Amino acid sequence: MSSSLPEFGAGLWHFASYVDRYATDGYAPPVTTLEQIERAGSVGDLSYVDVPYPFTEGVTVEDVKAALEAQGLQAIGVTPEIYMRKYAKGAFTNPDAAVRADLLAFLDEAADVVRALGAKYLKVWPGQDGWDYPFQVSHAQQWELAVSGMRELAQANPDVKMVIEYKPREPRQKMFWDSAAKTALGIKAMGVDNVGVLLDFGHALFGGESPAAAAQLLIDHGLLWAMDVNDNLRGWDDDMVVGTVHPVEVFEFFYTLKVNNWQGVWQLDQFPFREDTVEAARLSIRFLKAIHRALDELDIDALRAAQERQDAMGAQKLVQDVLFSSMRS
Amino acid sequence: MSSSLPEFGAGLWHFASYVDRYATDGYAPPVTTLEQIERAGSVGDLSYVDVPYPFTEGVTVEDVKAALEAQGLQAIGVTPEIYMRKYAKGAFTNPDAAVRADLLAFLDEAADVVRALGAKYLKVWPGQDGWDYPFQVSHAQQWELAVSGMRELAQANPDVKMVIEYKPREPRQKMFWDSAAKTALGIKAMGVDNVGVLLDFGHALFGGESPAAAAQLLIDHGLLWAMDVNDNLRGWDDDMVVGTVHPVEVFEFFYTLKVNNWQGVWQLDQFPFREDTVEAARLSIRFLKAIHRALDELDIDALRAAQERQDAMGAQKLVQDVLFSSMRS
Amino acid sequence: MSSSLPEFGAGLWHFASYVDRYATDGYAPPVTTLEQIERAGSVGDLSYVDVPYPFTEGVTVEDVKAALEAQGLQAIGVTPEIYMRKYAKGAFTNPDAAVRADLLAFLDEAADVVRALGAKYLKVWPGQDGWDYPFQVSHAQQWELAVSGMRELAQANPDVKMVIEYKPREPRQKMFWDSAAKTALGIKAMGVDNVGVLLDFGHALFGGESPAAAAQLLIDHGLLWAMDVNDNLRGWDDDMVVGTVHPVEVFEFFYTLKVNNWQGVWQLDQFPFREDTVEAARLSIRFLKAIHRALDELDIDALRAAQERQDAMGAQKLVQDVLFSSMRS
Amino acid sequence: MSSSLPEFGAGLWHFASYVDRYATDGYAPPVTTLEQIERAGSVGDLSYVDVPYPFTEGVTVEDVKAALEAQGLQAIGVTPEIYMRKYAKGAFTNPDAAVRADLLAFLDEAADVVRALGAKYLKVWPGQDGWDYPFQVSHAQQWELAVSGMRELAQANPDVKMVIEYKPREPRQKMFWDSAAKTALGIKAMGVDNVGVLLDFGHALFGGESPAAAAQLLIDHGLLWAMDVNDNLRGWDDDMVVGTVHPVEVFEFFYTLKVNNWQGVWQLDQFPFREDTVEAARLSIRFLKAIHRALDELDIDALRAAQERQDAMGAQKLVQDVLFSSMRS
Repeated sequence: MSSSLPEFGAGLWHFASYVDRYATDGYAPPVTTLEQIERAGSVGDLSYVDVPYPFTEGVTVEDVKAALEAQGLQAIGVTPEIYMRKYAKGAFTNPDAAVRADLLAFLDEAADVVRALGAKYLKVWPGQDGWDYPFQVSHAQQWELAVSGMRELAQANPDVKMVIEYKPREPRQKMFWDSAAKTALGIKAMGVDNVGVLLDFGHALFGGESPAAAAQLLIDHGLLWAMDVNDNLRGWDDDMVVGTVHPVEVFEFFYTLKVNNWQGVWQLDQFPFREDTVEAARLSIRFLKAIHRALDELDIDALRAAQERQDAMGAQKLVQDVLFSSMRS
Repeated sequence: MSSSLPEFGAGLWHFASYVDRYATDGYAPPVTTLEQIERAGSVGDLSYVDVPYPFTEGVTVEDVKAALEAQGLQAIGVTPEIYMRKYAKGAFTNPDAAVRADLLAFLDEAADVVRALGAKYLKVWPGQDGWDYPFQVSHAQQWELAVSGMRELAQANPDVKMVIEYKPREPRQKMFWDSAAKTALGIKAMGVDNVGVLLDFGHALFGGESPAAAAQLLIDHGLLWAMDVNDNLRGWDDDMVVGTVHPVEVFEFFYTLKVNNWQGVWQLDQFPFREDTVEAARLSIRFLKAIHRALDELDIDALRAAQERQDAMGAQKLVQDVLFSSMRS
Repeated sequence: MSSSLPEFGAGLWHFASYVDRYATDGYAPPVTTLEQIERAGSVGDLSYVDVPYPFTEGVTVEDVKAALEAQGLQAIGVTPEIYMRKYAKGAFTNPDAAVRADLLAFLDEAADVVRALGAKYLKVWPGQDGWDYPFQVSHAQQWELAVSGMRELAQANPDVKMVIEYKPREPRQKMFWDSAAKTALGIKAMGVDNVGVLLDFGHALFGGESPAAAAQLLIDHGLLWAMDVNDNLRGWDDDMVVGTVHPVEVFEFFYTLKVNNWQGVWQLDQFPFREDTVEAARLSIRFLKAIHRALDELDIDALRAAQERQDAMGAQKLVQDVLFSSMRS
Repeated sequence: MSSSLPEFGAGLWHFASYVDRYATDGYAPPVTTLEQIERAGSVGDLSYVDVPYPFTEGVTVEDVKAALEAQGLQAIGVTPEIYMRKYAKGAFTNPDAAVRADLLAFLDEAADVVRALGAKYLKVWPGQDGWDYPFQVSHAQQWELAVSGMRELAQANPDVKMVIEYKPREPRQKMFWDSAAKTALGIKAMGVDNVGVLLDFGHALFGGESPAAAAQLLIDHGLLWAMDVNDNLRGWDDDMVVGTVHPVEVFEFFYTLKVNNWQGVWQLDQFPFREDTVEAARLSIRFLKAIHRALDELDIDALRAAQERQDAMGAQKLVQDVLFSSMRS
């Protein structure tokens, strides 16, 4: 008996073009917010997108709403770009109080976009919060600024849910919110109830976490409010297409969500630098559907029994049986 | 003006011999507990040792006390060997309830040794708690067993301070207590006040943490009760001699302790597989004394000012001035 | 149409018990050479084993021959244990000329065992050749000793084929023969024709190589004489059961062998510390048979065409179609 | 007695501004080629720069020559930008024959710039040559294209020396020229005498090589024609300021150059994203001068004797004595 499919989503940037420090002319011509939405719609299986803010020049919230509607898409979240030049030395932990004040004003504005789009959350990814060099920062002060800034934002917008996306590093050599446990610890210290976590599969993997264990930890603390998936070679946030490198750990991740009865959107956060972005999304969803099928067929009782005795071989056999037959025709 | 030197310590195993999965005949002939104490005494600068338990066969607590006294040493902690064959699938998280019961009985016994030796703490390093394969364990259950087991131990021995030493992995592919933040989160969940953390510099480095940031986090949570240092190549717990690879980050670590007015023993946790163990300890302490001297000379006010503006170049200049002149004659 | 199965093999140590630096009492009771052979036989699908030398005490070459025959096994190679205490500071690159002389005498003896068992090769894995600390060795001298020592061995035994197994590190912090390219470069410098390479999948993965690319490089240089597989988390030589973590790259590795028409034994080099060793081998071979089936079904012409245009998505789709249906019933 | 200082150099991009995939508006306003030269001149200790080509729009070779002369600088090399959008799927290994033809034409043009500027070499860094996904490329074909393309370029410009700069990865997930040994192997296969290697300290470190060992290997093969230094956290090519993280290995690297009597420019390849670029260069050279002083004072005979017995502790003591007093006043 097959269960109904989950809803799928993607960061809208999945359909953008990219630059890096070498190919400064970009891997492809620029793609506007509205074109990105069109591409997302053309994938065919997406219900949600996470929308970066600000939009490309001249695009209004109304334009975005209309474009989403035209494609049958909803905004799951809004991602304010708090990692541009202005925030090069940090967003919440920026050493300049004026920048921090501007940040909060800008985030209030982004919260309005969440409201306007009817999105589920404001996604906060302060990728420049952290440090590069030994001795560069006072770690005590970083904690203070990171936690109190987020608290202030949350308290100023009690009607808006917010998720922090942690990541070990990049673009900063070390990012402040770098693991599930540290983010949980920081959120507890905020003492607010509208801040949770977005777990990015690749960030967990790259940080040496088991993504499944990180998900369980966050679920047990009531904080796993959103997630996205992708893949990498474990040494960097490569944002490759999900399942192309680590299908077993992807499967364990979704297994963990299932046995905890986690309900939510299965999202993609990928950067297909050199690929057709729509094709990359389609391959991803094809794989996720296979994972979903494998979960339907997995003998969960037997697996639990194997886990009860830490029987790795027995567990793997059950897993392989369904994973390696999930695309049979 | 130079401040007084800290007290130095070492894990007694620093003076043992070692095996690994290849050199199963050992890198040197076995060394008894009492011989290890003698070697520790011969270093000349050590005041404390952390004593593994059980002792080598036939050695009693009284023997150990006498041997320590003879060398002018004190026991800082006792390290029960809860990572031998019996605990291959875990200590607190062992799937077998009988093993877990034996574990607690054994740890009570080890707590008695803490009392008998007048040591400061029982060191708990459950290196086999964790997992090897995807799907091998229920992560929810691991948390439950790890936290509740430790709580039970702490509550049964309220007069004994205990420290958990976290580590990303080895011997298990993934160790349950794997980071400063996760350990802090778990200890909070225990709801006891006699459990803290021992931060191993190399474990933090190898786990992708900044050891200085991890120390600050634990200090801010009132949990940095002990520490030890060593060095590695960042990819594994190599337990090399401190300062031979990453002197700058060692310096930042001790700087963090100093500005927080952390008082405690500067301990070594090294495995000099192929070296003369006494010589290795001496080289380590020579380096730590240079670090101490550099800290005395560091312009902390200027450094703080540089950190206030995240001026990495300015901070490094101040640091290099004193670090690279710390061994001048 | 399905092709005939390859022959399977395993390092005999797969069926041993293990110690590490923590569980010094061993993860299981000791297993003799003859018992290991019995266990290998009981797997049911193995045709070859690689035999460590010396055998456990009291066991003769004749005993081994008889035991292999009784189990229907052949020796593919002999692995001299040149990584025990005596060689702690190196085998070929040991600083002590007397140790190096003993080494060559011992390896001549091991070559005799190759002859006696009718094995295909002498496997040379000098895991202690290398260094631990910056400045510890003269790298010029290491090259000289490693290359000339191996040349001398090869020239003294021109009738015996030898394979060097490279590995990035462990037990030495850095191993001299650390990559496919360096080993190829060194073998060329030897100027002999009876030295090739054994590629260990996990060593390549852990060293940041693509195992498939490393295999191709060695094939193109006429040096891929043997291989073994396993799995790991990319950060260490975990010697886990093949396919449990990185099935896609395992598949690419065997694909590379197939399109090059490489003929040879599919061997296991795994250390099932906490598992039933026979069960671990069976799970491995079950997976390898699925890989073999997937290779039979892969549309290689279409894949080549995708590769011609670096069409990663197209290639992955073809690969997933067969890999994720390879265990369908 | 102090030896004379080496000449110092830097990649001109050290003085540029940068973008990455997040801060697409750049960490600072754009800096033209001529402004970069001016900044390089203002460092005060630089004699050489490595000049990217093409120059910023409107700048001619004559402009560059004049600007260099005005600052007392010389071009050590020319770095053609063969990693922009056009080469996203590779330069020499691009799947499109037309792109490969354009590449060679462009590189011939760059060779003319080498001639015009009287530079020592053409630097070839094909950072997009490689692959991203398992199964994406034929590794046999990559070797063929990479080696033959470089051979063709070298043969077409026999009067121009060329250096290949290897790197493990970035921007491609895996770069074809990824290690010292593989690059040496490939250059041998080219059969030309005007191609050597530029060793980047950080690339070696990040790739798991010992930079000192890699330098020795290349020297022994007559291929170490240029080098540059920087620093990183070993997991990525962070291009941080040299000596801020790994001073000991930097020291071993320069020690290796010295004992081999390597003569050449000590170059910087750093990306000071968030720092003042001139200040970053000055801090680097201050450190390199300290390294030079330490080398003058190092007891090389004693160190060689320690290395003869692999006496790591003895070697480190000699090293620390001079390294940690190299900035005494």
